[in-house]
Formats: sequence, structure tokens, C-alpha cells
Amino acid sequence: MALTVSRTETGREFKVKDISQADFGRLEIELAEVEMPGLMVCRAEFGPAQPLKNARITGSLHMTIQTAVLIETLTALGADVRWCSCNIFSTQDHAAAAIARDSAAVFAWKGETLEEYWWCTEKALDWGPGGGPDLIVDDGGDATLLIHEGVKAEEEYDRSGMLPNPNEAENAEFRIVLSIIKEGLLVDPKRYRRMRDRLVGVSEETTTGVKRLYQMQANGTLLFPAINVNDSVTKSKFDNLYGCWHSLPDGLMRATDVMIAGKTAVVCGYGDVGKGCAAALKAAGARVIVTEIDPICALQALMEGIPVLTLEDVVEADIFVTTTGNKDIIMVSHMKQMKNNAIVCNIGHFDNEIDMLGLETYPGIKRTTIKPQTDRWVFPETNRGIIVLAEGRLMNLGCATGHPSFVMSCSFTNQVIAQLELWKERGTGKYGKKVYVLPKHLDEKVAALHLGKLGAKLTKLTPDQAAYISVPVEGPYKPPHYRY
Amino acid sequence: MALTVSRTETGREFKVKDISQADFGRLEIELAEVEMPGLMVCRAEFGPAQPLKNARITGSLHMTIQTAVLIETLTALGADVRWCSCNIFSTQDHAAAAIARDSAAVFAWKGETLEEYWWCTEKALDWGPGGGPDLIVDDGGDATLLIHEGVKAEEEYDRSGMLPNPNEAENAEFRIVLSIIKEGLLVDPKRYRRMRDRLVGVSEETTTGVKRLYQMQANGTLLFPAINVNDSVTKSKFDNLYGCWHSLPDGLMRATDVMIAGKTAVVCGYGDVGKGCAAALKAAGARVIVTEIDPICALQALMEGIPVLTLEDVVEADIFVTTTGNKDIIMVSHMKQMKNNAIVCNIGHFDNEIDMLGLETYPGIKRTTIKPQTDRWVFPETNRGIIVLAEGRLMNLGCATGHPSFVMSCSFTNQVIAQLELWKERGTGKYGKKVYVLPKHLDEKVAALHLGKLGAKLTKLTPDQAAYISVPVEGPYKPPHYRY
Amino acid sequence: MALTVSRTETGREFKVKDISQADFGRLEIELAEVEMPGLMVCRAEFGPAQPLKNARITGSLHMTIQTAVLIETLTALGADVRWCSCNIFSTQDHAAAAIARDSAAVFAWKGETLEEYWWCTEKALDWGPGGGPDLIVDDGGDATLLIHEGVKAEEEYDRSGMLPNPNEAENAEFRIVLSIIKEGLLVDPKRYRRMRDRLVGVSEETTTGVKRLYQMQANGTLLFPAINVNDSVTKSKFDNLYGCWHSLPDGLMRATDVMIAGKTAVVCGYGDVGKGCAAALKAAGARVIVTEIDPICALQALMEGIPVLTLEDVVEADIFVTTTGNKDIIMVSHMKQMKNNAIVCNIGHFDNEIDMLGLETYPGIKRTTIKPQTDRWVFPETNRGIIVLAEGRLMNLGCATGHPSFVMSCSFTNQVIAQLELWKERGTGKYGKKVYVLPKHLDEKVAALHLGKLGAKLTKLTPDQAAYISVPVEGPYKPPHYRY
Amino acid sequence: MALTVSRTETGREFKVKDISQADFGRLEIELAEVEMPGLMVCRAEFGPAQPLKNARITGSLHMTIQTAVLIETLTALGADVRWCSCNIFSTQDHAAAAIARDSAAVFAWKGETLEEYWWCTEKALDWGPGGGPDLIVDDGGDATLLIHEGVKAEEEYDRSGMLPNPNEAENAEFRIVLSIIKEGLLVDPKRYRRMRDRLVGVSEETTTGVKRLYQMQANGTLLFPAINVNDSVTKSKFDNLYGCWHSLPDGLMRATDVMIAGKTAVVCGYGDVGKGCAAALKAAGARVIVTEIDPICALQALMEGIPVLTLEDVVEADIFVTTTGNKDIIMVSHMKQMKNNAIVCNIGHFDNEIDMLGLETYPGIKRTTIKPQTDRWVFPETNRGIIVLAEGRLMNLGCATGHPSFVMSCSFTNQVIAQLELWKERGTGKYGKKVYVLPKHLDEKVAALHLGKLGAKLTKLTPDQAAYISVPVEGPYKPPHYRY
Repeated sequence: MALTVSRTETGREFKVKDISQADFGRLEIELAEVEMPGLMVCRAEFGPAQPLKNARITGSLHMTIQTAVLIETLTALGADVRWCSCNIFSTQDHAAAAIARDSAAVFAWKGETLEEYWWCTEKALDWGPGGGPDLIVDDGGDATLLIHEGVKAEEEYDRSGMLPNPNEAENAEFRIVLSIIKEGLLVDPKRYRRMRDRLVGVSEETTTGVKRLYQMQANGTLLFPAINVNDSVTKSKFDNLYGCWHSLPDGLMRATDVMIAGKTAVVCGYGDVGKGCAAALKAAGARVIVTEIDPICALQALMEGIPVLTLEDVVEADIFVTTTGNKDIIMVSHMKQMKNNAIVCNIGHFDNEIDMLGLETYPGIKRTTIKPQTDRWVFPETNRGIIVLAEGRLMNLGCATGHPSFVMSCSFTNQVIAQLELWKERGTGKYGKKVYVLPKHLDEKVAALHLGKLGAKLTKLTPDQAAYISVPVEGPYKPPHYRY
Repeated sequence: MALTVSRTETGREFKVKDISQADFGRLEIELAEVEMPGLMVCRAEFGPAQPLKNARITGSLHMTIQTAVLIETLTALGADVRWCSCNIFSTQDHAAAAIARDSAAVFAWKGETLEEYWWCTEKALDWGPGGGPDLIVDDGGDATLLIHEGVKAEEEYDRSGMLPNPNEAENAEFRIVLSIIKEGLLVDPKRYRRMRDRLVGVSEETTTGVKRLYQMQANGTLLFPAINVNDSVTKSKFDNLYGCWHSLPDGLMRATDVMIAGKTAVVCGYGDVGKGCAAALKAAGARVIVTEIDPICALQALMEGIPVLTLEDVVEADIFVTTTGNKDIIMVSHMKQMKNNAIVCNIGHFDNEIDMLGLETYPGIKRTTIKPQTDRWVFPETNRGIIVLAEGRLMNLGCATGHPSFVMSCSFTNQVIAQLELWKERGTGKYGKKVYVLPKHLDEKVAALHLGKLGAKLTKLTPDQAAYISVPVEGPYKPPHYRY
Repeated sequence: MALTVSRTETGREFKVKDISQADFGRLEIELAEVEMPGLMVCRAEFGPAQPLKNARITGSLHMTIQTAVLIETLTALGADVRWCSCNIFSTQDHAAAAIARDSAAVFAWKGETLEEYWWCTEKALDWGPGGGPDLIVDDGGDATLLIHEGVKAEEEYDRSGMLPNPNEAENAEFRIVLSIIKEGLLVDPKRYRRMRDRLVGVSEETTTGVKRLYQMQANGTLLFPAINVNDSVTKSKFDNLYGCWHSLPDGLMRATDVMIAGKTAVVCGYGDVGKGCAAALKAAGARVIVTEIDPICALQALMEGIPVLTLEDVVEADIFVTTTGNKDIIMVSHMKQMKNNAIVCNIGHFDNEIDMLGLETYPGIKRTTIKPQTDRWVFPETNRGIIVLAEGRLMNLGCATGHPSFVMSCSFTNQVIAQLELWKERGTGKYGKKVYVLPKHLDEKVAALHLGKLGAKLTKLTPDQAAYISVPVEGPYKPPHYRY
Repeated sequence: MALTVSRTETGREFKVKDISQADFGRLEIELAEVEMPGLMVCRAEFGPAQPLKNARITGSLHMTIQTAVLIETLTALGADVRWCSCNIFSTQDHAAAAIARDSAAVFAWKGETLEEYWWCTEKALDWGPGGGPDLIVDDGGDATLLIHEGVKAEEEYDRSGMLPNPNEAENAEFRIVLSIIKEGLLVDPKRYRRMRDRLVGVSEETTTGVKRLYQMQANGTLLFPAINVNDSVTKSKFDNLYGCWHSLPDGLMRATDVMIAGKTAVVCGYGDVGKGCAAALKAAGARVIVTEIDPICALQALMEGIPVLTLEDVVEADIFVTTTGNKDIIMVSHMKQMKNNAIVCNIGHFDNEIDMLGLETYPGIKRTTIKPQTDRWVFPETNRGIIVLAEGRLMNLGCATGHPSFVMSCSFTNQVIAQLELWKERGTGKYGKKVYVLPKHLDEKVAALHLGKLGAKLTKLTPDQAAYISVPVEGPYKPPHYRY
């Protein structure tokens, strides 16, 4: 795809697969709005005051229909927005088209190469001469990473005159990151530092991105405030769990049409994502086995009737799903032992849970693409094939449409609240270069916004009852350590 | 679509959407073969003897990947095959292409008009001058219907010189049937009787088709023997139940991406299909309510924790699924009371469970097609829309890919066995103009063929134990009235 | 216990554990009545006409609280009743006391010896000089067996002068049966034939008893009409399934307090009882494995995510339940391999599913009674013990209180209807010496009587809809072969 | 019951129901040991070093079989132990007898009056002239409360000469507490202060007791260090959740034999206990409705398919369970509207969730005790009765045997570790007058000790993987805020 930027009639930049899909995208966005009460209430409650007026927001987050409703909530609150996806397969092209035409600068399409992916990220951060964005909405931390790496390289260049050397990168993707930075440096050696200086903060969506932020906080290298949206209860205990409960079987069905009932399925990792995946597979009639490193999560699986074994014990299973957030979970040495047409997929943020490099470079391996994001890899010794989904990337976004609107409304309402908070406090010094979580009363508010749609009615504490359990009548109702 | 017939290089007729999809279809057929052990064992066990040699088989059954494996099992056993789909939306075009190119005459594509549908049916029955097929594989009974109606018309024409009058048909579809017969009569007034005379029998797949057959048996109008494959345990208690457990959420997800968890879902009918649908929706986190006429099925629902109410009581729900095999279940009067974006769909064989005519003709109604097979219908008084899937037809085949291979292998192995039996006994008089079911030992055999794939090991009775419970060591193990 | 008969003030005979528990029994009977709408409607509907007036009914059926409500329904309809239990451990002594005091002659207590058991059965059949009962309510067929064996012995004695020889009996229990018959013969050599001549028929409750009846029908030895109540849908698909779903964990918990979650449980047999047991264990968090001989039932288990293996494969499990209705399922050779404190129990009708004889006679075995019906048996070689419940008999009745009232109301309403039918048709010749099932409209009626209690509302067919599916508006709604 | 203390042959004090049940208790204790691997490993690992040598431990915790294994673990580690139950109905008399005979001073029996209950508590704290215990194992905080109230009264008495006035107590139970303290004061006005001075700390077991501790910490009135064992993940996410999953249906079945399938059940509160109760009732076939004050917990219920309504909306249900830890949940005004034989019970720590006082004092109310801990209360206006379990106290301990051994092994291993920690650090000043939780590595250790029993195998991180996710190879694996 030629990497050229188009412009709408109003002059807004974009690059999407097919702008003519905008009408289709708009129809699905309208359906999604009905399923996203948290975001719609934000528009109604905050819209008139335009609290994000003059805020430039860059988002790096799967460019789906649900994200479109998030983007248009941000713009309804006054923000200017530029957006890219955070995964090469996760864009829904009709969503991208609708947003590009109607609301924000979008650089995203389904099936980007890695070079294209980072080009899009760089475009989303590129607000022109005046520097970068004021705020970042991040998912997995790639936008944040690019700025941090850019600043590091610029400072090194100032110090030593050394340019980054892509050939020293530890993997192919990081080589691309360094190349982009290197090229940028040669044009404008202060670019990422101007971005840093302007940036008010980032709100980060997912476990993996949050882990990176805490690592940077621990190292003292974090360059701006960060709000950890992932650890809002209404995010991690809903999106991660119930979202995957929905989208894992959805992805399996769309990619392979395989009958889940009767099959043996291995879920690697029993965190929130793993719990959702295991529950979904059980509910669909599979026998589920979990692999875990953490004895507490392992004991939880056991209490739910799920055996906990090692991958080596169960390499004969039918379906394998990685959910760990760690790397090197299913190696090519496992895959070559699997039965014919075993399905291997990943629903964790990064593709390094599955040893795709080992697979691709296995001598004599033969790859047949059944359809996009569904490949069969045949080992020469055995002539047995395994079916790998979405090239090892997030299968629910690569092979299906990701999490459904209702649960994303919870996550994204947290994002909106975090963006509002960062912007509102931009001059106050309330937030330093640290990682923060939202206070519990906002978490409870996000939940409350989603009850009516499902017909729920809350009980109200009497003042006497509230005093008895030492909480305010209006909440928050639980101590910080409460686990839900 | 112009109704012109193409020919392969070998001269076999076909009409499909896009023959160039044959390679893609072939890849998916090869995957499906691994999931369909019953059919593959039939090929291995019976193939060498070519027991269907010289048999002409017409099939009227959803032209999917799974059906492709059925067709190629029939051809592997020696048969010549012509095929059409039994639903205007159920064809998978790549499956049709692969079969058309490689194995059988196919007349089917996704999104036929009703005229096209009956043209295809007629083509599948048209074996040229020598009469029709020897055997029919039917699903819903449309091929059987056409012959019965054709014979009736020919006899009336002989008797009275009267041609069928399409304008007197009770509905639009039957008008088309009568038109086809009328046109045929003018060309060849003995055509359907030649078919009848040649026909050895039909094996019928589904509840609705079987009901028609029993009605004809009761009326004394059945023209040839019929084997009721639907009531093999390995069909109705598997395909109908576990198939829908899989394909209902699959259809909902592909069509609407709606989050099922938290929603209220109404399942009309709690037979095998309804049980599968209700179980799937519960498993996905919905609150399920059942409507039923039969107190026994109602009590079953209650024991599973599912309330039983009338549709009027629950018209405020989020999702509605009809599974009854009856007509007039959800009327436009219900639909206009529903909440905005309520989803209405049918998974029973015919589309008359939902009052589509009432909807289409509602004054001022506005239809927006979100995407093919997903329409939003907005009532003018309330401006609320409902979302109707697959125009009221089988949503799992219209919006997704139908039942998965493994469970279809059970159903289709019954079909193959029924075809073998009819053909083998064609001269013996074993089967009269009645409806038969397969004997229990064959039913048990079908099940047995599917155990190994799932790693199961059966226990063997000792002779002493077999004597104690008065069954043969090798089965059958249950009395005919056993309900499983 | 001295086998002496007591009499109430009104002269009615009884032998129970403790008549002073009658008040307690009465309180629980009153609670149960609220849960047994089918029986209470029978009282209201039929009571005034006294349709069982002058009928002598002998019952051989677990003397529980639920059975008490059945007995008092029979007496409310005019019958005279004598009762014994059909299992040595299943009597609830307070229920027996209340009935003995208030309503019927009862011979039953928890913890009978086998001699006492058959003495009770014989007493329940002993209506004095005028012969035996008019009707039998049977569960497992022991009352029916005693009459059949008695008649056989009397006829042999007439023919050859030979008395039955208890020492030739194939097991200990049958030795007792022959002894009773022998002693009776010496006193009155026509006794059982007088019973036979008077008997109008039997209604039989359970799978095992029904199997015996069909065997006698096949052999031509059945002496009187029998109604198979077990195969009413509202019996076998409810009592057998949902009853065990409730009572299996209840028995496990009361007997052992063991945590089910996390354990591995083996269910031998996946018929209706096995399905209920497996579902209950899964629901409680166990990993369940099924053993089966029947490939269809095996495939059902697999579709529910349950592996099917042989007992030898899984002898390392924690909990074993037999549900087969067959003998020799868990042998002492299995039990000696089990892990320490494995739990072994049976929920099938007879205790020969578990090799109790092999266990009791194992050299050096040591038995410790933890509490009544909970024994630990320690093997000398390994010093590992296994825990056997209810001495291998029905654990739900031996260790808990059997099935709950609501589901027994379904079963017992079938019993009442069967008794009414037999008695009404006693002179008409409608029923020969065969096994009958109740017609479907009565089965549907039983279900209908239980809907209101659970707040259900049925949908009514329109005449047009009824015609479309060819059923009467008022039912029955399904063909005889329908499996539910 | 005369409140006289007995002595064993070795001179140890006790008061139990029936010391002759010690053998039975011992048999069940031996079974429980096999199910409590965490405690048994503690004995093996720590026993030789006798780390609790010279520690006097007072326990106030349900005197069950499982607690017996805890007590004997403490004594195996060198401690001297005195024990009382923390609920009037929760003692298992055979457990109390075995411990009293063999291991520790016990003051507990099933069915204490409140006066007896506090007498027992006081006895368990009474270590003679040398002061009180060194350590307390508490459940609900009553032992801790007595000391705090005692110290307060002594200080007031010192200050003002005022004795506590029981007549000013806000409820009947607190009147008894004040009476005990008053009587004690007159004998020895420094007693509770000597206890306080000696006390090293308390480890507290349950949500309610922990809440009290945090209130005292907030008020600055906490007199000694406390370890909050409840908020170990291996306690609150296991005992509270999976324990209730087991013991709620167990209690319902033993108390009422009611069929749960088909019923409508209301669970008040959807915390860990409520989640376990709701899951158990769903699994048993009930329709479950939840009441909640907290929108997050409410949204969790909804995602599981459970409606959230207020008690007023659902007062027509069949079964009601309170799990809130708050007071005044089900009032007599609700109860009088309930249907006949509705079941009302509480599984929260205190009985004030149900308005027992309102019920008892309702004009004209009639109470019938069906059996101990199962009462029917009939309202005079309607003649409808409701069934209240365990007089509103913890129904799983009042009507059944509480949580099963395996899950209690997790909780109690935390207790043992907490006691070891407090004792080990008694002189170091590590713990001040605050509430602490155990460090995560100990939590993970507790879980790890319970995996082998269930056949689980953990995966081990490679150093590379550990570095990638920034955790030690040996754990702990999660950040403190992780919710599991």
C-alpha cells in the first residue's frame, strides 16, 4: 500500500482502506451507541461544557466500531483527535472510514505490515509543527513507547552524535521503530522532546501496557503522568473477563467453524483473560485444561473443575489459547508434536506468546492460507498441520471483531474519565511522572452508568446501615484492597 | 442473476456464484474432512464396493462445506449427484464452487430470490430425458414437495385439462412453485410422474420435512418410501441440540456483534433446537425465558432454572429466537412493542415463524440494511427499530455458516446409511410408501464412529452383564422407547 | 428387632422404629404437601368421587415423607393401604410413624436386615384370609417378585411335591426369599395364587423394576397387568435426572462432608440417572469422567465436555458413583487400587453394582464405621482405606432423604393416575398380562399440574397453528417417539 | 445446662455436650486430615522446631471437625490452646468432644444460649491468674471485642467508679456482654488490662471481624496488633466463595429437603459469599436474583445472567439468603408479604441481617419448630408461614456442618502462618497496634500447598520469562492490587 495521506473535504488527514465504507461504518456506529450507555451519558453530561476543548488527543487503540464511539465521545467533549490502531489486524475498515470522513484523522487498516503499522503510529502522533498531542489514549503502550524511545535517541544524539542503529535491535519490530526514529532524527532532532514537553499525560488501557508503565516508573524513566485504566475494576474485571468470554469463541468460529463441544482446549494462563476464555470454552462444551505459574490462580482453576497441567502434558489437545502476557508460551517444539489440525491462537496483547519466528523458520515447513488470518502450517516430518490464527496476534480482533460494545463501554468510559481528569488537572501538579489509578467512586460511577440498560435496580443503604458498615450512603462501598 | 447453466470441462452442469472460489472451498473441505469421521469411515468402509454405483442422487440441502463432504462421500460410494440448497441464504459459495468444479452438478448460491431458489430445485431434479433421480436427500422436503405437487397437477391436467393457477396459491412462495409446475406441464405433461416412477425413495433430514412426510403418510398421498433421518438419536439429539448450541451465538455475533451477557433473551419453543439455543444463551451470560405450548417441555425448562412465560409477558426483552417449527410465533404486533434495537431471529426451518409479511407491509415502516442479512426496521410511530436477521430465515445459516462439521458428520452419516439402505433394498419390497426410521444398531454405529476423534473409550459388557440386563453384548443397548 | 406387629387404637397393624416420631413426621408431611401440587390436585379433583373405594393397595416403595403424601393421596381417594419400603436403608422413621399412626399399615424402618426387609414385604402383602391386595404400587419390583416366585413354587409343589430349596439360591438375598416362600407353603399352599387371582395389576416406578416386567412379558410369565410408570416422561426425565441432580450431592455431603469442588469424580453410566449425577458433580466444581457401554450415551457425555473412559483408566479418581442398573461395575479389584479415602457409592436401584461381597470377604480387610451408612474399608497390603456409602445401596436414600418432594410429586402423580386407571378398568379387559405405559395426554397433564407452583405460564396454540402442525389444540403435542 | 467445668484425667478443663462422642469425632478428624494438606504440611514442616512453644492461644472460632484439625496443628507446633465457638449453633459436638479429650480446653456445644455463649468465650480467655492468652485466633471478633469492652469498662471504673450498665445496652446480646464484664470487674478490676498487656496479637478470620478491626484502627482504639487473614486471597476468594458454594445448598437440603431446581431464589449481597451462594443456587437449577448496593458488584451479577432488583421487587420468591455483612436486610415487613413456606436464611456472620426481633415480637405470630434450627413462623393475618433457618444465624453451620475441610485448610493455613508470624515477631516491634495482611509470597505458598492433593502441576517460569514480566522466578507473581 502506498503510504500517502489523503484529506477530507475539510482538510483532515487520513489513510484508510476504503473511505466508501463510511456509510456502512456509520450504521454500525449508530447500533453500537445504543449498547454503550456509559459513553453516551458522558456526551450528555459533559458535552455542553466542552471540557476537552483545545485538547489534542492521539489514540493508539484498535480502530473498531466501539473505538469509533469512543473517538466521537472525545470529539463531542471538544477534543481534536488523531488515531491509529494498536494491532496490524484489529482495524475494522468501515469504522475507520466513518471516523476518517466524519470525525478525526485516522491512519489504520486491517492487515497492515509492521512498517505500515509504525508509519500509522507516527502519523497519529504528528500534529505538525506545534509539537505532538496533549493527551494520549494508549492500548499496549506503543505510542508511549515511540515517544520514550524517540526522546532517548535524541538525547543520545545530543550527547554523543550517535544515531540509533536498527541493526542492533533485538527483534524485527524494534528494528522498524529504530529506523523511524533515526529517520526522524535526521530531519528534526528535537521532535520527540517537543512532544514530551507538551504532553499532559497518557491513559493506558491494557495489562501489557500498564506493565510497561510500572517498569518505567520503577526505573525512573517515565516521562509524563499515566493513568492506569486497566486496573479500574470496571475495566479489568469486565473487558478482560467477559469481553474474552464473548470474543474467544467468536474468533474461533469465524476463523475455523470448528465445533468446540467435545474438544479438549488448553488455556495458557488463568488471569482475567484466561478466566474468560476458560469459562467460554467450558460453556461451549469443551474439556478445558489450564497451564499456570501462579499457585493461587491455579487453585482457582481447580475449584472450577479445571485441571492444571503443563503444556507438555497436554500437547495432544485440540485447541490452544495463550492469555499470559508473557513470551515464549507455545514454542515450535510444542507445535510439531500437536495433532493434525490442532488450533493454536493467542488472545494476549502481543504475538510473542506463540513462537511465530520458530514456526516460520522451521526447515521445510509449509504454510497454506485458508483465508486471511487463518493459516495451516504443515511440518515436513509428520505431514501434520496446525492451524494458526491471526499469525499469532490477538485472535479476537484479527479473526472476529473484538469485544462487544457493551463491555467496551465500561472500559472506554474509564478512558474518557481519565482523559478528562488529566486535562482538567493539567496545570495543577496533581499528577507527577507516575502511574495512577482512578479513584473508586469513579469506578463505581462507571458501573452505575451501565445498570439501567440491563434493567437493574440498586438497593439504597439507609444512613443507619451505612454507619454500621462505615461507608458513605453514596459510596464508595469497598476498601481499596477489595478484590470483587 | 441470469439463470443460465454453465458446464465444467467434463461437461457437468452447474450454476454457482463464482467458480473461482473452488480452491478456497477445497481447502475448507479438507479441514472439514478431519472433523467428519463418520463420513470418512463410510468412504473407507464402503468405497471399494461402490454400493451406490449407478444411483442418481438429487440433494436439496444447505450447500455448505459440510454438505460438500457428504456429497463427495456419496460420489466416493459410486453415486452421480445433482444438488441445490434448501434455503435461499444457506449456500457457502466457495463450497458450491468446489463441488461444482470437482464432484457434482450444483445449482446454489447465497442470496437467491425465491424464483431462483425453485429454479435451482427444479434443475437439481432434472436428470434429462431418462427421468429424475433414483434417490433424494432432502432437508425440509422441498424436492419431495415439488414432485408431489407436480404429480398432482399432472394428474389433474390429465383428468380435467386444468392447469395449476398460481394466483390461487396461498402465499407468494407457493405461487412460484405452481408457476414452475405449470410451465413444465406445458412442455412435458408426464415429467413428474416419470420422476415418481423412477424414485426409489427419499431420506429426510429435518423435523419440518419429517412432519410433512408423516402428514402425507397419514393422508395416503406419499408417493415413495421415506427414511426419517431426523429421528435417529444421533441426528435429533445432536445436530438439533448441540448444533444450535454452537450456531445460534455464532449467528448473533456475526450479524450484530451484540454482547449476549447481561441481556434478556426469549427462546420460543423448548424442543431440541430450543434447548440448544437456551443453553447457549445461558452459557453466554443471558437471562433466558422460554415460551412453550407443551407442559412437559415447559417443566424441563423450569427445572433448568428458566422461566416459562408468554411472549406478551416478555416483549421487553433484548433478543428473540423462534425455534418452534410452527407459524405465526412473533407477529408484527409484538415487534412494534419491542424496545429499540431488539434482535428478532428464527432458527426453525421456515421463515413463517416470524411475521415477515406483516412487517414488510406495516404502514410507514422503514428498512435499513446494515449489512446483508442484518436489517433494521423502524416503526414510524415510535421511531424505534428492531433488528431482523436473515429476513426471518434460518439465522445460523443466513448469518453464519450453520452447524459445525463434527455434529453434521453424525447427521450426514445417517443420511449415507439411509441412502445405502434404500438403494440396496430397491428391488426387495422391504420399503413401501411409508416413513421409516433407521434401526437402533445403525444409530449406535453412527455414534461409535464419532467417539475416537474425541478420545473416548467405551466399556465392554461381559456376557454375564449383558444377560443380566437382557441385551446383546454388541448392542443395541436400549429399548425403542428410550429417550436418551 | 423382634418381628412383632403392633396395632393402633383403631386396630391397624404396623411395625415402625418409633411411633412417637409421628408428630415430627406430620410436620414434615405438611411441608411436603405444599411442594407436591400434582398429588394435592388429585385429592381435590378425585377425592369427592372416592374412585379407589374398596381397593386394597399394597405399596413397596421407599417409606419417606414424599411417599407419605402419596399414601395419603391414595387413602384420600378411598383406598385401604399397606406399605413397606423397597430398600433396607430408605425409610424415614418419622414418616413411617406418622403414616402408621394416621393412615395406613406400615412395616418399615431405617436399617432393616435383609430378613426383616422381606418380612416387611410379606406383611405388606398380607391382607388376611381374603387374599392379597387388589393393586400394587411397586418400586424395583420386589412385591411383584415375591408373588411371582410364590406362585411358581406353589405350582411346582402341586406338580412335584418339591419345596423350594433356599440353599440352591444364587445369592444370600434370594435365599431369604425362598425361605419365606417355603415357610408360607407349608402353612398355606395356595396363598400366592389367591393373591395372583385377586390382583388387578401393578404400577411400577423404576427402571430396574420395569426391566424385570419386560423380561417377564417376553418370557410369557407375567401374571397380571403392569403399568410402566417409569417411562412416563414426567417420571424418567424428571425424577431420575433432576432428582439425582439434587440427591447425589446431598448424600455425599451428609455422609462425608467432602468438598466436591476440585475433585475428580467418575460416574459409571450416563443414562438419566447418570446424567443427573454428572451434571450435579460438574455444577459443584468436580472434574467428571463417565464410563459407558452405549456409544450414543457416550457421545452425549462428550458433547457436554465430559470425557468417556473405562474404569481402569480412572481408578485414581476421588469419587465413584454407579448408576448403571447393571451388576459388577466396581469390583474389589478396582477398589484395592483406589487412592486413600476414595469415596465409592451407588445410586442405582440394587447394591450389586458394587462388589460388596468381594469387599467384605477380602482377606484381612478392616471395616470402620464412621457413622451409620458411612464405612471405611482398609486394605491390608496398602493400609489405604476407601469410604463406602450405604453399604453399596442407594446412597441418596441411605445417606440423605432421597429425592425432594417437588420432583417426586411428578412421579407419584403418575402412580396415582396408573392406580386409578387399573382400578377403573378392572372388569373391562382393557389391560391384559402385559406392560403398558400411560398415554401421552396424561403425561402432559402431570406436567401441567406442576407448572403453577413455579410461576409458569403456557402459550396456547391457535386452531390455525394447531392445524399447521397437525396436533389438537389441547394436546397431546408430540408423537410417541419424541424424546424430549 | 449447668455451667460447670469438667476436667480430663490430665486436668485440662472443658465443657462439651457429650464427651463420649470423642471417638466419633476422632474418626472424622482423621478423615479431615487427609483433606487438609496445608495444615498437615505445617505440622511436618514446623512441628519439629516447636515454634509455638510456650504460646497460649485462645480461639473463638466455630468448633467443627475442621477447626479440630487447626487446633491440633497449633498444639503440634507447641502451643497451649483454649477454645470456644463463635456461634451458638456452629459447634459439632463430636469434634468438641475429641478435642476436649485429646488436645485442648474446649467450651462449646451446639445450641448454646447467648448467656452460655459468652460464658464460653470468657472461659476460653481465662488462663488463670497469670493473665490471658498470648495470641487469639478470632472469627467475627467476639474474643477481641470482649477484651476491648472489658478494658474500656475497667478504665471507666478507674476513672469514675462507674460500672457498666447492662440495661443501657442497645441489644440483648450486648446486655449480656456488659453483665459479664460488670461481674468480672467486681471480682478483679484489672483482669482485661492484664490480658491486653500480655497479648501479642490476634489473627482474624472473617469479613465482619476484619471490618471491626479496621474501625478500631481508624478510631485509634485497637489495643494490639491484628493480622487480617480474611483478605488473604487464599481465604476470601476461596473459603468465602467456594465454601458457600458447597455449604449453602448443603444447609438448605439438610434443613428443608426442598427441591432447589425450579425455584426462585434471592441472594442479598453479591460479594464473595453472595457470589458463591448465587453460583450454587444457579447450579442447582434455581432462578437467582441478586440485591446489591454496590454498582460494580451489581454489574458483575448482570454479566453472569443474574438480574439485580430490590427486595421489594422480588418478595414473592421461594428462597431468600442474606450475605451482606450489614444489618436490617430482610425485615418482618418483607417476611409477612412472602409466599407460604418461603425459606429465609442468613449465611453472613451475624444474625442481624434478618429482623429476628421483629419476627419474634410480631403480634400473634406462631412459631412451630419442625426440627432444631428449622422453624416455621405463621403470620396471623394470612395464615401463611415462612421457614426460618438457624434462627437467622449462619445457616451453613447451624443446619449443616459448615465449609468442607479442603477449603478450610486454605483458611486455616493462613491462620497458622499468621500465628507463627505474630509469635515470632513478638519482641521485635515489627507489628504495632494496626491491622496487617500477610505478604503475597505466603499467600501463594498457602495455595501451592493445596495443589498436589488435586493432581495439579504448575508451569515454571524461565529466568528470561520472569525478567520479561519483571517478577522473581519463585514469585510473588502479581502486584498487590491484583484482584484474581
